[in-house]
Amino acid sequence: MSTKKAVVLLSGGLDSATVLAMALAEGYLCHTLSFDYGQRHRVELQAARQIARHMQVADHKVVGLDLKGIGGSALTDLAIAVPEAPAEGIPVTYVPARNTVFLALALGWAEVQEARDIFMGVNAVDYSGYPDGRPEFIRAVEQLANLATRAGVEGQHVHIRAPLQEMSKADIIRAGTALGVDYGLTVSCYQAKEDGSACGRCDSCRLRAAGFTEAGIADPTRYF
Amino acid sequence: MSTKKAVVLLSGGLDSATVLAMALAEGYLCHTLSFDYGQRHRVELQAARQIARHMQVADHKVVGLDLKGIGGSALTDLAIAVPEAPAEGIPVTYVPARNTVFLALALGWAEVQEARDIFMGVNAVDYSGYPDGRPEFIRAVEQLANLATRAGVEGQHVHIRAPLQEMSKADIIRAGTALGVDYGLTVSCYQAKEDGSACGRCDSCRLRAAGFTEAGIADPTRYF
Repeated sequence: MSTKKAVVLLSGGLDSATVLAMALAEGYLCHTLSFDYGQRHRVELQAARQIARHMQVADHKVVGLDLKGIGGSALTDLAIAVPEAPAEGIPVTYVPARNTVFLALALGWAEVQEARDIFMGVNAVDYSGYPDGRPEFIRAVEQLANLATRAGVEGQHVHIRAPLQEMSKADIIRAGTALGVDYGLTVSCYQAKEDGSACGRCDSCRLRAAGFTEAGIADPTRYF
Repeated sequence: MSTKKAVVLLSGGLDSATVLAMALAEGYLCHTLSFDYGQRHRVELQAARQIARHMQVADHKVVGLDLKGIGGSALTDLAIAVPEAPAEGIPVTYVPARNTVFLALALGWAEVQEARDIFMGVNAVDYSGYPDGRPEFIRAVEQLANLATRAGVEGQHVHIRAPLQEMSKADIIRAGTALGVDYGLTVSCYQAKEDGSACGRCDSCRLRAAGFTEAGIADPTRYF
């Protein structure tokens, strides 16, 4: 039996479900972590739970976090509309420092679990202009992780694994399909309905639909 | 009128109250941030509110954060006792990745406020063996901050200011007293009572009491 432990950030979307399948395929005992941060697309939390159960992870945790109080994003502030056309620069769906906060919390849980690997589904190709999806960001987090924790002080290296970093959406879908990921359980839409159906118009929906088309794999997404 | 904005991490303790006084003295418009993270010494949240009001900050925010769910520390897990004698190595009162999480959230709020400076009361002299109080940790956070945020992408440098880093507790108390900090409003004890009175026996109480003695300043702390 494997004793290699990993913490996997699981949003309930397509990317993180694929990353979880990759970590499991590498033989990690996976502890999945989701965040209830006041996101408008809360149905993704339900999707994350279903994915965690379906993929038989060791433990799934939902951490409550009041990002809504901090504001500044269309994903947490209902007064800012989700755009349905690509925009220049950093989009309004960017949540200030979200990935930094998520990775910091993953680091805390990894420390308690004595896990040395943290998996995350960030992607540099399709990152839609978010600053905290860039490879240099991930490297900086890894450096920080090794200064911030008990493990780092004791000389055990913590790794931030971002295996999707350089993959296209089509490649991600192909890899996940080969590992048996049920993408029908995943929710990517920024304004998904309670039943998990998607708008088909936001950035996230467009990227996802184009990925399935390019991969030549049937898209199980339900649109409202 | 000043338009220089800063986010100041305000725990309700002696150090962060001093840092707030320093930021105000430098002419910053201060936005103070506290965390309700399931700490056993919750009375510090009340202290932080009183300090913020007394020092007339622009805005004070309390962000809810479920660190208790992550576990692993005497400060959030009531099953782990707060030690009353100094121990070797990293103490059980260390909260895994806490400062990383706090700084990440401060970064998010600074981004929304367009503040370029984040003030924090960490201290390398009295840090009691916590890995995330070390100067190299603060430098790594600053590096990360400039990769993780909109400001960083747009070339505006974010600074993590830790002015107490190299100061002794006595020096901090002297500096704060000169700036008019009312230390009677602050709570340092890891197991403070509801009324703000302190045990006088935990690491944090010992450091504080020794600091007032060394500074030759009357200690306003109430002990139970």
